[in-house]
This record gives sequence, C-alpha cells and structure tokens, in this order.
Amino acid sequence: MTLSEEVRIALDGKWRHVREQSRKELGEMDLAYDHDLTLDEARARVLVQMKKLVPTGIPAAGFRVESGGTGDPGMAVTGIEMLAQYDLSLMVKAGVQWGLFGGAIENLGTKKHHDLYIRDLINLDLLGCFAMTETGHGSDVQSLETTATYDLATQEFVINSPTPSSRKDYIGGAAAHAEVAAVFAQLITKGENHGVHCFVVPLRDKKGKDLPGVTTSDCGHKGGLGAVDNGRIMFDDVRIPRENLLNKYGQVDEGGTYSSPIDNVNRRFFTMLGTLIRGRVSVGGSASAATEVALSIAGRYALKRSQFGPEPGKEIILMDYRMHQRRLLPLIARSYAYRFAQNQLVARMDRLQSTDEPDAQESRELEGRAAGLKAAQTWHATKAIQEAREACGGAGYLAENRLTTLKGDTDVFTTFEGDNHVLFQLVAKELLTSYAQEVGGLDPVGLVRFAAGTVADVVKERTAASQLIQRLIDARPGKSEDDHDLLDRGAQLSLFEDREQHVLETAARRLRRAGKDPGEAFAVFNAAQDHIIRAGRVHIDRVVLEAFTAGIARCESPEAQDLLRDVCSLYALSTIEEDLAWFMGHNRLADTRAKTVTSLVNELLAKLRPHTLTLVEGFGVPESSLHAVMLDA
Amino acid sequence: MTLSEEVRIALDGKWRHVREQSRKELGEMDLAYDHDLTLDEARARVLVQMKKLVPTGIPAAGFRVESGGTGDPGMAVTGIEMLAQYDLSLMVKAGVQWGLFGGAIENLGTKKHHDLYIRDLINLDLLGCFAMTETGHGSDVQSLETTATYDLATQEFVINSPTPSSRKDYIGGAAAHAEVAAVFAQLITKGENHGVHCFVVPLRDKKGKDLPGVTTSDCGHKGGLGAVDNGRIMFDDVRIPRENLLNKYGQVDEGGTYSSPIDNVNRRFFTMLGTLIRGRVSVGGSASAATEVALSIAGRYALKRSQFGPEPGKEIILMDYRMHQRRLLPLIARSYAYRFAQNQLVARMDRLQSTDEPDAQESRELEGRAAGLKAAQTWHATKAIQEAREACGGAGYLAENRLTTLKGDTDVFTTFEGDNHVLFQLVAKELLTSYAQEVGGLDPVGLVRFAAGTVADVVKERTAASQLIQRLIDARPGKSEDDHDLLDRGAQLSLFEDREQHVLETAARRLRRAGKDPGEAFAVFNAAQDHIIRAGRVHIDRVVLEAFTAGIARCESPEAQDLLRDVCSLYALSTIEEDLAWFMGHNRLADTRAKTVTSLVNELLAKLRPHTLTLVEGFGVPESSLHAVMLDA
Repeated sequence: MTLSEEVRIALDGKWRHVREQSRKELGEMDLAYDHDLTLDEARARVLVQMKKLVPTGIPAAGFRVESGGTGDPGMAVTGIEMLAQYDLSLMVKAGVQWGLFGGAIENLGTKKHHDLYIRDLINLDLLGCFAMTETGHGSDVQSLETTATYDLATQEFVINSPTPSSRKDYIGGAAAHAEVAAVFAQLITKGENHGVHCFVVPLRDKKGKDLPGVTTSDCGHKGGLGAVDNGRIMFDDVRIPRENLLNKYGQVDEGGTYSSPIDNVNRRFFTMLGTLIRGRVSVGGSASAATEVALSIAGRYALKRSQFGPEPGKEIILMDYRMHQRRLLPLIARSYAYRFAQNQLVARMDRLQSTDEPDAQESRELEGRAAGLKAAQTWHATKAIQEAREACGGAGYLAENRLTTLKGDTDVFTTFEGDNHVLFQLVAKELLTSYAQEVGGLDPVGLVRFAAGTVADVVKERTAASQLIQRLIDARPGKSEDDHDLLDRGAQLSLFEDREQHVLETAARRLRRAGKDPGEAFAVFNAAQDHIIRAGRVHIDRVVLEAFTAGIARCESPEAQDLLRDVCSLYALSTIEEDLAWFMGHNRLADTRAKTVTSLVNELLAKLRPHTLTLVEGFGVPESSLHAVMLDA
Repeated sequence: MTLSEEVRIALDGKWRHVREQSRKELGEMDLAYDHDLTLDEARARVLVQMKKLVPTGIPAAGFRVESGGTGDPGMAVTGIEMLAQYDLSLMVKAGVQWGLFGGAIENLGTKKHHDLYIRDLINLDLLGCFAMTETGHGSDVQSLETTATYDLATQEFVINSPTPSSRKDYIGGAAAHAEVAAVFAQLITKGENHGVHCFVVPLRDKKGKDLPGVTTSDCGHKGGLGAVDNGRIMFDDVRIPRENLLNKYGQVDEGGTYSSPIDNVNRRFFTMLGTLIRGRVSVGGSASAATEVALSIAGRYALKRSQFGPEPGKEIILMDYRMHQRRLLPLIARSYAYRFAQNQLVARMDRLQSTDEPDAQESRELEGRAAGLKAAQTWHATKAIQEAREACGGAGYLAENRLTTLKGDTDVFTTFEGDNHVLFQLVAKELLTSYAQEVGGLDPVGLVRFAAGTVADVVKERTAASQLIQRLIDARPGKSEDDHDLLDRGAQLSLFEDREQHVLETAARRLRRAGKDPGEAFAVFNAAQDHIIRAGRVHIDRVVLEAFTAGIARCESPEAQDLLRDVCSLYALSTIEEDLAWFMGHNRLADTRAKTVTSLVNELLAKLRPHTLTLVEGFGVPESSLHAVMLDA
C-alpha cells in the first residue's frame, strides 16, 4: 500500500466503506456542473441526478428502521458530504430533501407522520422543502413571524405570513420542485403563543401550481448553486388539518389545548432545533469536502507548472517557491485537521442519534461543537478555495477548472444553517453559561445574565475527558529547554488550552460587570462582542487540535503517523502564528520564542514540500473526478 | 452642502468633473448585468454598450492630440474606473480596446501606426485585443515563446506559436470580437533574438472567420466577467508586413538589421512594458470602485436591517453591533485610503504622460507604485467584497443584490495585469536595488545579485519629498507621554516608515549573503521570498498613509477634514493591529501600548458609527445605480 493510501485510510475514518462506495458510484454518474444550462435546465437535471441517488441507499440511511429507513446516521451525513466533491448543487438539493425536510418529519413528527411521509420522501415520490428562514429573520429563528393559529371550529391550523418580513425566503425547493413544506411558525391556540413549531403544509398541486393562499416566487440567480431552486413563500390563510403539526414536542388537542413534554418554552425550542443538528454537520462536512477538492486541484497544478527561474529556460516548479508553499501547505494542514474533527463529530452524532434517550448534556455539547466546527470549516472553505483559485492564476479563473464554481457554490455556507458569527457566539455562550441552566434565546441580555463564574472548570473537565491529551500536556518539555519545544504536541495543546481558558475567563469577567438593566446589559455585551466571538473561535481551535492528535493515535501505519505528525504541527504552529500578538501580549510566548514560530513553520514547509502529492492524494478525491482541464495537459 | 457631499468632493479628486459626467451619463444607460443572457447574448450586448461610450469622449481622452485623441490621460483612466461602478465586463472590454490594445498602438507604435489605427479604434471601427499572456507564461513576460521571425525574402514577419505553452491565453476579445491583435513575440532577425516586441496581427476576416494560420478558441465560462469574450490564439506561420512591427523601441530595416534607441535588452523590455502602465492603474482603480459599490450596498443594508435584541420585539440595527462595525468600518476606511492613493497616482501618471521626455527615475518610481497599489487594491477588493457579501447574509448571496457579481467579476483582478505576489516582489526589488542600476528580469537571481546596501537612504530620501509628512513626524509626541499618542498622525507615519525601513534593511541583508552561484542565489532568494514580498506590502502601506494624509490636507471643508482624520486613524490603527506581532516583536510597541491599539480601534468605531451613511455616500455611488433589490424594500 502506498503512503497516500495509508494516509487516506486515516482520513476516511469510520465510514470509509461509504466513501469508497460513493467514489465508485458517483464517479460513474455524470455530475460535472454544466454552465451552459439555463436555470430551468439545470434544475431539471439535478432532479434526475437525485433519482440516481435513491438506489445507493444513502437517502434511506438517514431514517430509523421503524420509520422506513435503514438507521445509519453516520452513513447518511458521510454520503451527503461525498456529493460535495462532485457537485454542490446536488449536495444541497439532497441535503434539503433528505436532511432538512426529511429530518424535520423524522425528528419533530411522530409515528403517523413517519408512516405517511418517510418512505415517499426517501424515494422522491414526495418532494419537500424546509421553510424556516424569513426575509426579516435569518439566524434569529425564535423571532419568526409566520403564525399557525388553531381554529377550533374546523380543527385546522391557519397559516399566515402577515408582513413582508415574515415571507419565507431563500428556501431550497420552494421556487419549483417542492410539493410540500415543513413550515416553522408560531403556534397560537386559545389566544396564546407557544413558540415556534413545525407544520407540514402542501404548496403545489400535481401540475406545480401554487395551492390557494400560497404564493411562491423565485430567488433567481445566485452567487452559485445554480441548480438549486431557491424561492420564497407567502401564506394567506392557508388551512391545514390539525394532524399536520409535527407534534413530538408540542401537541394541540381537538379542543385546542396545548401540551408538551417540555414545559420551559426556551428549552423546548432549543430541543427541537437540536434534533436538526445533522444540517450543520452536513454543511460543515461538505464545505470541507469542497475545500479538499480545491486544494487537490491547486496542489496538483503547483506541481506541474513552472514560472521564472534562476536562469533563462530553467523555470522553477511553483511548489518549490517558498511563497507558494506558504500559500498552500498550511491550508492543506488545516483541511487535515478539520477532517479529523469532522470524523470525530460524525461518530459522536451517530452514537447519540442511535440512542433512544440521548443524554441532554452530551447533546448540547454536540450541538455546540457542530455549530462551531461548521463556522470554522466554512470560513476555511471560503479562504482556502479563494487561495487555490489565485494560486492557479488565469487558469484558476476559468470555469473549466472548477475552482470558481467551488468558490461560488460554497460561499453561502458561511451564512446558511446559521450565520458564522452567530454560531461562534452560540458556542461561547454555551461555554460561558457552563451548560448549567435553562438558557434564554440567543439574545445578548440572556448571555450577560447567565454568564457563569465557573468557566475554568468547564475547560479542565472537558480536557480531562481525554487521557491521551492530558498525558501529552503533562509530558511537555519545560519552556526554556529548547527552541524546538514548540514542535512538541503537549506544548502546542497546552498553548491552545491556555489561550481558550484565558479568553473565556476574561470574557466572563467583562460580562459579569453588567447590572440587571436590559439596556446596560446590551451595552456590556456589545462592547465585548468581538471578545465573545473570539472565545468561540479559540475553543474550536483547541477541539480541532485534540481531534487531530487523537486521529493520529488511531492511525495504524507508522509511516503515515510520522507524516501526519508534521502536518499536525504545521496546523498548530500556523494557527499560533496567526494569533502571535495575543501569545506575546499575554506572556505565553516571549519575544525570542515567538520569533521561532515563523522559522519552525518554514522548516515544516520544507519538510512537507516533497509530500505535496501524497497529501493531496490523501484527501481521496479521485483524479477522474477533479474535472479540471488544466490538469490534463 | 451636506457633509457627505464635502467628503465626496475630497474623494473625487482632480478629475471630479469626469466623475460627475460619468455619474450622469452612465446612470442613463442600461448597464445592469443580466444573468439570464447566454454568453453570446451578453457579449453582443456589451458591444452595444461600448458604442454608447464613444460619444462621451472618454475613449478619445486616452490618446494624444496628434494621434487623433484629446490628450487627457487622467480623464481616460478615471472614465474607465467609473465604468467599474456599473458593470465590470464593460469596464474590462473598454480597458482592453482603448487601454491595452489602443495603448500598445499609441505607446509602442510610431506615427504611421497612429495615423492608420487610432481614430478607428477610438470609434470602434477597428476592434482589437492585447495578446500578451501565454498558457505557459503568465506574469513572466520575458519568457514568452511566440516568435516573430523576419523573412528577408518577402520583407514580412512570420508569427508562430510552436508549442502548447506558447498559445496566447485568456485574451479578452480573442474569442469573438477582435479583428486584430497586438501580439507580443520574440523578435528574431538574422538568427538573433532581440527580445519581446509587439506586432499588429490581423485575426479575422469581415465575417469573423479566422484568417489563414490563425486558430482562435473560446475560454468559455469564467468566475465572472460573463460578457468578456476571453479566448486563445495559436499562430501557424502567419505572415504580416514588416510595417506591422510597433517600432518605437525597436526597428528592423528592409535588410533585416535590427536597431533600437535602447541598447540594453532588459532596459528596453522594461521601458516598453512601462509605457503600458495605464492598464495596472485602471485595474487598481476599478477594483477600488467596485469595492466602494459593495461597501455602499453593505453599509446601507446594515443601517436598515435589525436582528436579535435586548428583548423580544426590540431588534438591534445591524450597524449598532460592535462586530458589524468591526467587519465593515475598517474596510471602508481602507477604501478611503486607497482612493486618495489612487488619485495621487493618477495625477502623477497624467503629469508624466503629458510630458514629452519623462524622467526615467520618476517613471520607474511610478511603475513601482502602480504595481504595488494595484496589488493592494485588488486584494482589498477580494476581501472587502467577500465581507460585504457575508455581512448581508442570505440576501447578499442573491444575484439581484449584486454583491456576488461584484465578487466574481473582480476576482481575477488579483491575477491579471500581473499576479499580486509577483507585483509586490517587483516593488521590493525596485526598492532593494535602489533604482540604481540596469536591472535584470524578474528572476530571483537578478534580485539577489543587485541587492544594494543603500536601502535606508532610499526610504529617507523619498519621505523627505513631502515636507508635510516630515513635519508631522517631527512633531509627534514622545512615546511614553500618553496612551493616546497612537492617534497622532506623526506617530502613525513614523511607525509605518520605521517598519518599512526595517523590513527592507533586513531583507537586503539576507540577500547579500548569497554568493555568485545561480543555484545558491535561488536558495537564498527563496528562503527570503515571504520577507521580500512583505517588504513590498509594507512599503505600499506607508505610501498609502502618506497619500491619505496629503489628501486630508488638500480638503477644503474643516468638517470633512475632521471626519477624514478619524477615518485615516482607523486605517492606520487597523493596519497596525493586523501586524501587531511585528510591532511588538521588534520593540516598536511595548506590550501595554500594543494593547491600546485594539481599544483605540474600538473607540474609533464608536465615533464613526453615526457617520456610516455619510461615509458610504462619500464614495459617490449614486443610489440609483446600486441596483440592489434588498435596499428598495
């Protein structure tokens, strides 16, 4: 077995068999994006592609056996993620149908809904969409304006979007394909609002015409995802049977009385949202997959293209330039890091979602991690795909070389399934409130009010969970012994952990200064907002480094382990380098030691340069599926 | 007059009348990009739009009166730049026809060429393209492979592109519209190669069919610039009359004897390239213009959209969030900085190009500045337009709100007219070799060989050119007096200058270590490449800060000056903040003083927040031309 195969096995993780299956099956389909198609043609084509996915078994994997699926959540998200290597429009369409729409039915509905819908939606006999976002309300889902008011006389819910800002917007499938929608709306009965719930609302008749009271429209062209039919929906007194409420977490009886297994309205809301975690996991994983494709293309191009040179006729291979190594290798290292973190996340999600009564604390931790990792992965995608494009010069700008399409398609990933800034804020909030109490919404005041004094314990406790990490930290060399101590994993882990703890503690201290007055609380929150978001970010940095470390330990090839160790150090040190001012200003790195960071990064670049091809091959993007004309020549 | 009008006057600069004219005339044309058009339709439409530009007088301004123009270089580049506010495909098409193709005829040709072509190309009776870049040779123009061999028997040049890598590539106009090309090729006569020269080569007959020996093809879809017909050209023994050599800097007589007013082959090459400076100036200016449009859209959106809030129903305006201020205001400040620097550059270029015998030293300085500023402006465009897109969430992803189109269209700007890394390297090289000697090509070894010992003098001498700057530096407060001394312009200027000098000096020291062996020289260069590129970057930072300072001094409204001073400080301090580790590690900022940088930036954000609308209005993008649907609601 070659080194790159051994590396790929380590990166493929637990659902390697799904990846191998997808590489084979998807490679045989004709999935390359066609820029010559009109919107309508591209949309029609992606529907045909989706139908080919049904027999692969990936769609069914996302649903429990008793609902009509095969009950393999890890396979479901891995399968979706693999689509991202081929075409992101297809990935998003599949994610909307089976992940979001199907996920809402499966997780928020009960047996009657499963029996009625799941088989049909797996087989695409029923096409759905996920109508959550409203024009005026993006990430702030608790403020949705669409209402579902129970009408006692007819035992129906009446769906209304009363204002322009309550219009459902950017909804994948709403412009053309979706026959029904999972609509999120404020549930009102007997004059009381019980918060956001989800309802199954038919949108179109068999001919594709809007049903009475429903008005759909088209979002038209976008920055990418050309085959996804994003649209808008307005509801004007649309009546649906009482049974169309997905009633696992809230029920209205015939007489209009509301009941729920969860009394607290905030906890109920976040529990419902929490069940939909797979969306974020899939978006983060797909962003990573697309990034790997882009880096595979740019890395291969850098190995075949020469420019300038020490004398005429002796041009230098791009990858031999220090600057080019600086541009690509740290991004490749980060992609490795995120892949290991993603694998760990998917494994935990799979375990938790395969349990009948998942632990609440563990569920919330998982949600926080999924949110933060999604933000980190999608920003990395934006940055790395852009750099890959630029690193291929003019050729990188041609659609035939895929990079601009990858960039445009993934661009919205930083926005959907939660804006990244809001997500890091959510992560920080969970850490700052120590997962200890019933928390409020995502509003700033709630955060200020609940800022806890026990941040330090949280970090310690969570780190202690991994004995390997703790052992490495304990065994790290003393600071002054050697300039190269920064290459020690324990030293790196300790720097990451220390930074997280300090950023969290100081954030908590700032927030605790606020009084009870909502206005003052907002001012305190706002003055610290960049600090809070940073707390989420550095937390994820630490989580990712630990996941990388654990992934190396699990790797069975000593040679691959050696290579991965250098890649991991490059991830760690380039992360430290980007935040060097903090480490210096907070006396975590003395000036002289700080200066070694850059030279150590450069040493690692030189060491990894000969392994460039191995590293991009390790991503496991089959050459035949790269679809970049410039690599053929 | 409102404050925003006063600010706009300051930003508009010397060619304000051209800007006002363009705002009026372009606003009346129908220039919004139409994503529903096919490639062919979009290309046909842009040609119609170009014809409407002829009567504006902008095209004629780029050519000397004796050639058939009106001789106003400043007007020409300002006019091109204004197109970028409306549609970048149109800007590029106009830039190719009148700037690159026309510029080659004007600057590399002689009277016979001017008489033959200029009037026709101004009026679009002759459509041309600029065939420089080859598939295998991007920024490395001296290594072009296409040959123009003089055939004594027929007194013709024979044009050949013998290899796949010698194919002309990405050439705007080559896929469809261009009838002739300005082709850059190695001039060979009597068996001797005299380096790259430019030749007028007919491509197509009246019906648009390739002429014998010419094979054009289409680059197809790209990441943007949908209406630009980029294509490829191969030449197979294409014969052109001897007179088609643009012979200002090199002539072949009937007998095949080569002569040139410039003996040194490198100096000749760089002199020829130097006359084409307007391309870089236009690309940089257009990138800035597009960035201003994006920030105008995102700034306005942030002022009308609310999300979350201290209590239900009380959502907060996006722009009131600290994080949103952090995201947008420093980018706006940087756009202000680049606008002042661009105005200064255009004024110098106009002065120099209106002189019969421009000073060689001044010309090279101007070229270096144009190269560096282009790199800085286009990277800023990539970053700022991306941030603007993300700051508008899902709405920002819809084509109807323009941001994704601006992103895609400007994306290639970091690549064309010279890859940005190569350009910063060029800037550094000019500084490191003190403009002192005949320099070699852009090859690393040339740089190492010529690294001079007089870097310090260069910086001092050039700074001294501006007495205002020197006065401010001399009058700066002592370092320890006040935490707020970093708000002092002299202190900021001094920090920027000091950093530049140190980075240059240390780069020179590293390069001087190399011996004469080419292989060793490359290794030394390569190990320092990131350092060298950084030298170019920090040089431009300093130049830009000085230009901003000078621009404020020229502003006639005291109120506008006050506002601009804060914007300038935000530019300076956020630039320092991004490079804080350097300032700390090199003892330019002590830890305590370094910590005040971030709090000063935050103070400036709070101070500038109320002026957000004034600042985006100051860019002078007419509301009617923003074309973002989300701003209408």
